[in-house]
Amino acid sequence: MKIAILGSAIVGKTLAGKIASLGHDVMIGTRDPAATRARTAPGSFGDPPLSAFLAEHPSIGLGTFAEAAAHGAMVFNATSGLGALEALKLAGAANLDGKVVVDLSNPLDFSKGMPPTLSVCNDDSLGEQVQRAFPGAKVVKTLNTVNANLMVAPGTLAGGDHTMFVCGDDADAKATVTGMLKDWFGWQDVLDLGGIAMSRGTEMYLPLWVRLYGALKNPMFTIKVVR
Amino acid sequence: MKIAILGSAIVGKTLAGKIASLGHDVMIGTRDPAATRARTAPGSFGDPPLSAFLAEHPSIGLGTFAEAAAHGAMVFNATSGLGALEALKLAGAANLDGKVVVDLSNPLDFSKGMPPTLSVCNDDSLGEQVQRAFPGAKVVKTLNTVNANLMVAPGTLAGGDHTMFVCGDDADAKATVTGMLKDWFGWQDVLDLGGIAMSRGTEMYLPLWVRLYGALKNPMFTIKVVR
Repeated sequence: MKIAILGSAIVGKTLAGKIASLGHDVMIGTRDPAATRARTAPGSFGDPPLSAFLAEHPSIGLGTFAEAAAHGAMVFNATSGLGALEALKLAGAANLDGKVVVDLSNPLDFSKGMPPTLSVCNDDSLGEQVQRAFPGAKVVKTLNTVNANLMVAPGTLAGGDHTMFVCGDDADAKATVTGMLKDWFGWQDVLDLGGIAMSRGTEMYLPLWVRLYGALKNPMFTIKVVR
Repeated sequence: MKIAILGSAIVGKTLAGKIASLGHDVMIGTRDPAATRARTAPGSFGDPPLSAFLAEHPSIGLGTFAEAAAHGAMVFNATSGLGALEALKLAGAANLDGKVVVDLSNPLDFSKGMPPTLSVCNDDSLGEQVQRAFPGAKVVKTLNTVNANLMVAPGTLAGGDHTMFVCGDDADAKATVTGMLKDWFGWQDVLDLGGIAMSRGTEMYLPLWVRLYGALKNPMFTIKVVR
């Protein structure tokens, strides 16, 4: 399947690497491919610069946000929350129309110090903003509650006995994404919260996530909904 | 131990009943004890009116917020989030000074429809507001992430294999509350998030809680932090 990954930081690379390893045709989208390729410094989490990553994953393409979105039959938004709407605008509504857009971004605002606040919450969410800005896209919010490594390998923690959430307004798109989470990554417990407005719930969990990270000193944790 | 429970709704009654059953000397505090006692309608969750509850629990006293707070060596704030600061003001700073105040309240605002929004979040929290308003009290935020029945009987769900959070600025008060959670109620996994500002994390989990309740149609659930 042709897949677009918007965003070339740790989340984008981790997703791209895993999805390409399954045999899919992956293109990473970034604002300025030449500048991204020229960068030699490691990422914020000590992850290799994109050029090194691409050298190790020769099947993965790199293009502008628009080129990647045009390439993908399914589009992953793995940009930072504050840059998400702008990145998707550069991707272009025409390149998103009718497609499943998997939105992983969280509206984390680090500008006021740590732990970060949310730039939108309570009576709106980034998931809803994305859906409103691109009404032709089938936005499904998911994977935003875990670290990048857990996203694609939930089984590495407690044998995968924990919960992932999906929400979105299009039932078929949610079914597609739920299947992908299970078949591609190995998620076992995928809980459908409802429409895209339910993004408020999972995005507002992030303030607890960052505090749990502070308490546990290790990002390889998540929650299981015990019921 | 002498215990004050501020609030006579389902959470207050559930806590009072359990704590009194352990042999503690419990007084429930309410705004107008005579009016509360005269009410004959069941509570919002079909729970019996307080008069019926008190008739079944003759050892439990009823007083004003101030009388109850004066009685308690430990004070539970089990009022509704929007009424919490006013109830504690009526309880009186002098009756809270130096005491452990267990704050269970959530700033849920139902005035804008369902699911509720939060009246404070993101850059402040109700836990912090309570601590700032009563600097002499040792406020510990806990139990606000679960249904009343689970608060006092975590073992009834999955054998108690799930997580409760505590936060607060006073380490001794947190240790006291952690011991109480384990010894009185049977909580097994109590996770210390840090100071009272960490209330932002657990209160902002509530928007996910209400959506999970909507999806699961049953309030007897909670989360386990898998790590």
